Amino acid sequence: MGDDEAAGRRQRVRARMQRLYPLCRSITGDGVRATLDVLEEDLPPGVAMQRHEVPSGTRVHDWVVNDEWNARAAWIADATGRRLVDLARHTLHLVGYSVPVRASMSFEELRPHLHTMPDRPDWIPYRTTYYERTWGFCLAHRDLAVLEEAARLGPLEVVVDTTVGPGSLTYAEVVLPGDEPGEILLTAHLCHPSLANDNLSGLSVATELVRELAGRPRRLGVRLLLAPGTIGSITWLARNGEHLPQVRHGLVLTGLGGPGPLVYKRTRRADRPVDRAAELVVRAHGGQVRDYSPYGYDERQFNALGFDLPVGRISRTPHGEYPEYHTSADDLAFVTDDQLAASYDAVLEVVEALQADVTYRNLSPYGEPQLGRRGLYPTTGGKNATDAVMAMLWLLAASDGATSLVEVAALAGVPVAVLHSAARDLESAGLLAREQAPVDAHQYWSSSARAACAAQRPS
Amino acid sequence: MGDDEAAGRRQRVRARMQRLYPLCRSITGDGVRATLDVLEEDLPPGVAMQRHEVPSGTRVHDWVVNDEWNARAAWIADATGRRLVDLARHTLHLVGYSVPVRASMSFEELRPHLHTMPDRPDWIPYRTTYYERTWGFCLAHRDLAVLEEAARLGPLEVVVDTTVGPGSLTYAEVVLPGDEPGEILLTAHLCHPSLANDNLSGLSVATELVRELAGRPRRLGVRLLLAPGTIGSITWLARNGEHLPQVRHGLVLTGLGGPGPLVYKRTRRADRPVDRAAELVVRAHGGQVRDYSPYGYDERQFNALGFDLPVGRISRTPHGEYPEYHTSADDLAFVTDDQLAASYDAVLEVVEALQADVTYRNLSPYGEPQLGRRGLYPTTGGKNATDAVMAMLWLLAASDGATSLVEVAALAGVPVAVLHSAARDLESAGLLAREQAPVDAHQYWSSSARAACAAQRPS
Amino acid sequence: MGDDEAAGRRQRVRARMQRLYPLCRSITGDGVRATLDVLEEDLPPGVAMQRHEVPSGTRVHDWVVNDEWNARAAWIADATGRRLVDLARHTLHLVGYSVPVRASMSFEELRPHLHTMPDRPDWIPYRTTYYERTWGFCLAHRDLAVLEEAARLGPLEVVVDTTVGPGSLTYAEVVLPGDEPGEILLTAHLCHPSLANDNLSGLSVATELVRELAGRPRRLGVRLLLAPGTIGSITWLARNGEHLPQVRHGLVLTGLGGPGPLVYKRTRRADRPVDRAAELVVRAHGGQVRDYSPYGYDERQFNALGFDLPVGRISRTPHGEYPEYHTSADDLAFVTDDQLAASYDAVLEVVEALQADVTYRNLSPYGEPQLGRRGLYPTTGGKNATDAVMAMLWLLAASDGATSLVEVAALAGVPVAVLHSAARDLESAGLLAREQAPVDAHQYWSSSARAACAAQRPS
Repeated sequence: MGDDEAAGRRQRVRARMQRLYPLCRSITGDGVRATLDVLEEDLPPGVAMQRHEVPSGTRVHDWVVNDEWNARAAWIADATGRRLVDLARHTLHLVGYSVPVRASMSFEELRPHLHTMPDRPDWIPYRTTYYERTWGFCLAHRDLAVLEEAARLGPLEVVVDTTVGPGSLTYAEVVLPGDEPGEILLTAHLCHPSLANDNLSGLSVATELVRELAGRPRRLGVRLLLAPGTIGSITWLARNGEHLPQVRHGLVLTGLGGPGPLVYKRTRRADRPVDRAAELVVRAHGGQVRDYSPYGYDERQFNALGFDLPVGRISRTPHGEYPEYHTSADDLAFVTDDQLAASYDAVLEVVEALQADVTYRNLSPYGEPQLGRRGLYPTTGGKNATDAVMAMLWLLAASDGATSLVEVAALAGVPVAVLHSAARDLESAGLLAREQAPVDAHQYWSSSARAACAAQRPS
Repeated sequence: MGDDEAAGRRQRVRARMQRLYPLCRSITGDGVRATLDVLEEDLPPGVAMQRHEVPSGTRVHDWVVNDEWNARAAWIADATGRRLVDLARHTLHLVGYSVPVRASMSFEELRPHLHTMPDRPDWIPYRTTYYERTWGFCLAHRDLAVLEEAARLGPLEVVVDTTVGPGSLTYAEVVLPGDEPGEILLTAHLCHPSLANDNLSGLSVATELVRELAGRPRRLGVRLLLAPGTIGSITWLARNGEHLPQVRHGLVLTGLGGPGPLVYKRTRRADRPVDRAAELVVRAHGGQVRDYSPYGYDERQFNALGFDLPVGRISRTPHGEYPEYHTSADDLAFVTDDQLAASYDAVLEVVEALQADVTYRNLSPYGEPQLGRRGLYPTTGGKNATDAVMAMLWLLAASDGATSLVEVAALAGVPVAVLHSAARDLESAGLLAREQAPVDAHQYWSSSARAACAAQRPS
Repeated sequence: MGDDEAAGRRQRVRARMQRLYPLCRSITGDGVRATLDVLEEDLPPGVAMQRHEVPSGTRVHDWVVNDEWNARAAWIADATGRRLVDLARHTLHLVGYSVPVRASMSFEELRPHLHTMPDRPDWIPYRTTYYERTWGFCLAHRDLAVLEEAARLGPLEVVVDTTVGPGSLTYAEVVLPGDEPGEILLTAHLCHPSLANDNLSGLSVATELVRELAGRPRRLGVRLLLAPGTIGSITWLARNGEHLPQVRHGLVLTGLGGPGPLVYKRTRRADRPVDRAAELVVRAHGGQVRDYSPYGYDERQFNALGFDLPVGRISRTPHGEYPEYHTSADDLAFVTDDQLAASYDAVLEVVEALQADVTYRNLSPYGEPQLGRRGLYPTTGGKNATDAVMAMLWLLAASDGATSLVEVAALAGVPVAVLHSAARDLESAGLLAREQAPVDAHQYWSSSARAACAAQRPS
């Protein structure tokens, strides 16, 4: 049944991506709304998607919400009416936010509006023009010659049937409440058109995580934010200022189905609980950990000095480091079910580690308590301690009321799940009590814990 | 004469182990008392051993002192009365704390009470049953067949002639007073029967250290604690609560004669003076340093959160990492005189480094004082500084009233003994004064000092 | 023209060394004054050299200013009057501070006053006797035999025509004022006679730096101190106690023309701004960084506990690590124009990094400000950020009012000069403001910044 569950998950993750792939998305417009429709269908019963429409022109901190953009059609046709480049064939053909055009023009007139990749002559690049009112087409470099040839028959017909004007920016949230104040923010951008790894993988895996987490006990709430990149996260941040202190941990999810090992990008401060939890999990999965950089996805907004939110990022080979990035080669074949499934597993483990990451105090700190008397220890003295016993001994040794469970896991080299279970046993035996003080984002993380964490690589 | 001294030491260390080896020891009983008799004989004149008998049933923190156990005899004989397994032949044959039995039984009835090591068919394992009232025998796996064969002649006679009942737990202390408040605790467990490395090596080397230290000047006192593992140290801790703040540094000594390099196990906090001193010495001896773990010997009691004592551990290849551990193969041939002697040297160096580990203040801090005028510097300018000059320069550069001599040693890469001698010269010249503030356990240890310390490996 | 400038610099650096090489220098005397005459000639118009003469016998902290020493002549001649060893031929022949002698003596009588290097028979060693009233000659070991042979003709004539008596110690300063309080101290010792790398390279490169810096804008002042080693810096420190808080950063310059990569020696505290700036620059030049040690040049005086000044040292292969050190083989051929020029470049970069090392506060910290709207960002979304954009993003991400520009450079892996330019653009756009609080010497330098700094090695 576990296998069946996993198979069902794989199928759903891929099916959603297949449905999302052809939609013409940008940072605003009906493509975004249609994308949310698809995702909403897969939410479990009783879990609602809240959608928000923010009017164009709204000030959001240093930015202003863009005019809404919608594309009905766009093509370049030859004198015979044959469409040589057509948005209907691939959403990347039209530069995002292109303004309307309807004109006949020579190849030379058209050329400045054409974007290709000479070094990858079969791939269509991805281009946008959010802040300059212009238009353009993207195409495979080898098709330039076709256009040029076609232009010999007569002027080319260029049609960009788009609208750019007052409307709104759309984003959505799915909230799973928790037993305690505070929440874990998961977020994926939804503004890219037919690009599978960047960003359909994030949208589909995040939806699957919500399905799973909705059925599990949750100490902290979980909030999924689906919004366009940059302007979307800034809009959400601007509209949720009072809520931000509730965001205890966060992860940007993107690029989860492409090649390469998992890569965790630290928060700006690098010492937040999410950094510890993600580092332990990602290293255990054979992945890598990198320091923060202000270039990337929406982690750069959440970590900005004024917000200072503890939001890291999980991806595989990051943006700009694989040639298919922001090209038509980032298609449905580029992402594999195995990579998507392993990403799902890792993110789920990080979330569960954060749910378990409370701080305990040892109630019997004068020497090791007699575990045997409480039925917690093998009675015949043998050679070595079991994992479960080691988990208990570490919890008793390190639970000083300031060291959290994930920190103990890093020190002990014991998986968080094993420690979590041992902590419940010790709590039941009256040997450990939850420390009620809130976990401070800057709490102690000893250098030995860091080193231990860094050493949790698979052998 | 130095060679003669060393030879005498080697001889005494081995002779004590030979006398201790056949005694049937456990965590209580006459074996413990006989062990102390042997060790007491070798104390120098004027140095007393204080023995303590703590009644069974006494509460000691979370534990209760066990009933006393004594074994007069134990054997398994065949129908002809031939003793096939006999405590008189090896103390490991009887499971520690076995309750009395006198019965005839078939091999099948007896089998659940027999412990062997199938993967090491010639070795007898070491087993105990302190907290479950049962009994058992340990034997070489190849001897199982002998028993089974013998049982065909008729039922086997099983005799366990032991007593378990109210009595007392025995431990002993040897105290060498110091010139100042505070003491260095050395401790070894004495509860294991015929196991040479674990624990006779610790008992015999520790006794030799007391012999040597008794004749040396001592800034701090030295306390040797000889007690059964776990329950013994917890009992001592429970009975000495008010004394504990006097324990400034501590070392658990065990496994000193087996194979492998020296291994220092850090205190839980890892930044105590004993950690610095032991790290410098052990690395200079080609040894290794490991982080704390709550599994091991009595360091786990001393370092427990409620006591938080700065007690590290010096051993060679630690428990559980060599196949002979807790088997009859840990015999007198397993420990070598060379390893025992080198362990003795290293522990003595650590103790002396701690004795020298005071904090100085440079009394002439405005530039380098003119050493030449005071006869402390070569007068003709040459190429390089001598070790003695470097020791003085480092002491003057680093003696800010907060950095201790061992910290300076780590920074300077100069042996503690050379610095100690240079410090006396500078004190005599009025350039350095002892800082009277007590050394705080959490005092500054710069990362460069740590790195320097870690780098003091033999080339 | 840049090439012409560089060629002119190389010529001047060498020409000064050629003029300084034959002068007979020591820690006091006319050789020092003649040296300053040469250097003063090359100062640019309007930049003055201030000379100080401090009377012999003046107390300077733990030291007393030496009697002044001058050498008119010194030789050893054979019975025919032929001078076999002659100060006129090489300044190293006479032991510095030799007292006057005029005597005839046998080779055996003379021998204790002769210093040679048996393992380098062609080289003359460098020796001084500042604090013992004696005399001596240094010569090539192979010339000992010549002297011995010559002595068979009759007694050798020994003449040391020197004066040692009340006079003064000479040092000089060149001050370039800055726009703000605080200054960068550059210092080189000037007490060594004909030794090119140690110390003529420092004197000549430092003079060239002053020429260049005099024509540049200067946030902080620059002070060049030219003084004899040890007693000179201690004298300056003693006479400038109230000024010392103005010394915000400092560099001892020496050994800049010999072989080997650049070597930066950290300040005693190792976490000063000059440590960060020099580490970044020196590593980018393929150089090395070492921890402080109290042996070396005048950094040991500036870093002494009572002064605690943030003064590091830049050299190439340090004193005592190359065989030519303190011998006649440290001659003008030993130092190369390329090494001198590269040293000049690196020190200038460190000084300019320190001039730029101010702390900014991001004035638009709520998410990334919209750089495109301000003309600071490429308008068509493409693949990767340019260096200039990354510099802006890093400044915005890290300018929390406590992290300085050099710290940002270490985090970002972006050259200080690029960040400095980006900071001006952001300041002009109203996005960044200088934080007026003074930079504290012990301000935050995160371990990730340190690690990033350490990683800035050329690939």
